[in-house]
Amino acid sequence: MVGGVGMITIISHYLQELAKIYGWEDLFSWLRIFDYVSVRAAGAALTSFGLFILFGKYIINWLKIIAPEDYISEGNRDQKGEVINNKKIGTPTMGGLMIVGFLDVSAMFWTVWNELLLLTVLSLLVLAGLGFYDDYKKVTHRGEGPRGIGEYTKLAVQILLGVAIMAYLFINPRLSFLVEEVMVPCFKEPIFSIGLFSSVIGGIIVVLAIIGSSNAVNLTDGLDGLAIGCTLICGIVFLIITYLTGRVDYAEYLNLTYVEGACELTVFCAALLGASLGFLWYNCHPAQVTMGDTGSLAIGGAFGIMAVLVHQPFIIIIAGGVFVLEFFSSALQRYFYKATRISTGTGKRIFKKAPLHHHFQELGWKETQVVTRFYILGIIFAVLALITLKIR
Amino acid sequence: MVGGVGMITIISHYLQELAKIYGWEDLFSWLRIFDYVSVRAAGAALTSFGLFILFGKYIINWLKIIAPEDYISEGNRDQKGEVINNKKIGTPTMGGLMIVGFLDVSAMFWTVWNELLLLTVLSLLVLAGLGFYDDYKKVTHRGEGPRGIGEYTKLAVQILLGVAIMAYLFINPRLSFLVEEVMVPCFKEPIFSIGLFSSVIGGIIVVLAIIGSSNAVNLTDGLDGLAIGCTLICGIVFLIITYLTGRVDYAEYLNLTYVEGACELTVFCAALLGASLGFLWYNCHPAQVTMGDTGSLAIGGAFGIMAVLVHQPFIIIIAGGVFVLEFFSSALQRYFYKATRISTGTGKRIFKKAPLHHHFQELGWKETQVVTRFYILGIIFAVLALITLKIR
Repeated sequence: MVGGVGMITIISHYLQELAKIYGWEDLFSWLRIFDYVSVRAAGAALTSFGLFILFGKYIINWLKIIAPEDYISEGNRDQKGEVINNKKIGTPTMGGLMIVGFLDVSAMFWTVWNELLLLTVLSLLVLAGLGFYDDYKKVTHRGEGPRGIGEYTKLAVQILLGVAIMAYLFINPRLSFLVEEVMVPCFKEPIFSIGLFSSVIGGIIVVLAIIGSSNAVNLTDGLDGLAIGCTLICGIVFLIITYLTGRVDYAEYLNLTYVEGACELTVFCAALLGASLGFLWYNCHPAQVTMGDTGSLAIGGAFGIMAVLVHQPFIIIIAGGVFVLEFFSSALQRYFYKATRISTGTGKRIFKKAPLHHHFQELGWKETQVVTRFYILGIIFAVLALITLKIR
Repeated sequence: MVGGVGMITIISHYLQELAKIYGWEDLFSWLRIFDYVSVRAAGAALTSFGLFILFGKYIINWLKIIAPEDYISEGNRDQKGEVINNKKIGTPTMGGLMIVGFLDVSAMFWTVWNELLLLTVLSLLVLAGLGFYDDYKKVTHRGEGPRGIGEYTKLAVQILLGVAIMAYLFINPRLSFLVEEVMVPCFKEPIFSIGLFSSVIGGIIVVLAIIGSSNAVNLTDGLDGLAIGCTLICGIVFLIITYLTGRVDYAEYLNLTYVEGACELTVFCAALLGASLGFLWYNCHPAQVTMGDTGSLAIGGAFGIMAVLVHQPFIIIIAGGVFVLEFFSSALQRYFYKATRISTGTGKRIFKKAPLHHHFQELGWKETQVVTRFYILGIIFAVLALITLKIR
């Protein structure tokens, strides 16, 4: 593995080569520990967490100036439109800049760059860019008119990204099986694997995984610590799955498709976990910063693409169960309202308020109770996801 | 493993035998899944969590009547003695009754009973009883005088329990190595292993692990969700360690001492995790119930005895790092105050207030921030503890 492109492996390799020239091999032989995925994962997590602890406060102070939350969003009003959460006003948003930035720095340093990693980092950056543009338009918005970029513009960029990634995977002979073979949890073999039909289904699933996951995390981001805590829990599942998928022996033992190089995604996940812990430090109730679309779209997209790359696109539905519930509660509410308005004249609602976390707030749960209880749900979903690996 | 004493294994074994008589082996062969530790662990976690969700609300209502928190404890006053936290008054305590009760029901049902398990359950019950007596004296206390049982009475019971367990282990030929051989993290071999000296040191460590751990969790229990969340994190480490220690192959691979039957502690840990998630549901800020000494002394004791039983007594210091910090901050504060009062006439304090969580509250952190940040610390300690398993 040493000798691949990646900061830490290049440095370690270079020092070892240098040592050989002077006959100091023994002195520098400990550098070989950087070949281990586990050591690099630990380093990556420590780096992204450390960056948060070192620089978080300063960046938050800067965000306070450039991106204060100066509006009362839908989620901060109750059903009658009264402000229920005016504490949030003044809290800086766009904290996702830190998450994506520190995560990328750490990942690019500690991984050995390969296609899987670069695809993931690329999606992360594209979606963070999209989210940043949205956040930026929101905080600089003055006067009347729609806030942020339109829903359809957002979706168009997500579809473009999804299709581009799908196309890249499809034409790459080493990775085309990720599109052509359709895997479903609890089944050893692909349920479809040959021909145009399978490729079309597989392609659609790839695109949907990326779009759905990105939007689902986006919708979850509404209460202090909710999205980042669920990211932490879901990230642990991905850390484990990418590790197992990237090791020939474990993949075979568990009947998973072995994906060469998936171990580098493990290092990426470790960096994500470190960044999540770091962000949670400032984002826990009462939040000193929120991630904004910059963070939530990017994190969601990263989960989607990783699920595709380990050949388990549906695992995101189980591992990210809380995100899925938030997504469907929101979609159901919206379309049920539209459908009943057309059929009966007055729109009806299933939930008191969508997404789901606001429903429970309306039921009288405190913000911190909703968040902690959603964490508990998230942990249960995470365990279920890990169980599906074993049952096949 | 089937055929041992334990509800689920007896039932499964009995049904299989019965099936044989009627020639229905194939129909009942799936019952063999209950031989797997992983299946039983999942069942145990689900049971204790499910019991909380089913009965939690009713028991809390009952505790409201018999055990309302009707006093303003030290932790709810600031340095000037003003009440800073009067929301807590009226919240029922003794929630530990649920934790210990549901945990025991689940553990006794899903495990195969062996000495290790029974020692753990016994310690849990003794300490829960001690804690209950203390809580009960507190809630029924009227008028002047000391509240609860005295500090020295508490300590005496803990020492007695510790010594009894140590003596039992020492005279049991199959378990005496747990006392005679002194293990330290990161060392493959015991640092002392022969003779009276080693046994004395080992014996002292066993007793201290149980007392220290019990009191440390007790001190941590002071903010909504703090103790139970840290229990959850520490419990995951113990779930993993007991599993590795109880499997010959993994124990050998990692150079751990193999302890026969430690897998049953894994099932116990799973039950503890389920109970922790269940209790956290009600204990998250703003708490609907607190665990009281009934819960904290018992949980701490269980960690202490489990650390001893897997032959890693010092692992509790790393895995339970948050508990240790709370313990030492409290002890330091107290003895530093006493020492400076004797030497200079006026007592000085190191922390604004002890245990540590109150120090940060005085620094201006909100309760929820202290709790979440201590969780983050706890996760870091947990990862460190797991790393020490690999480095030896």
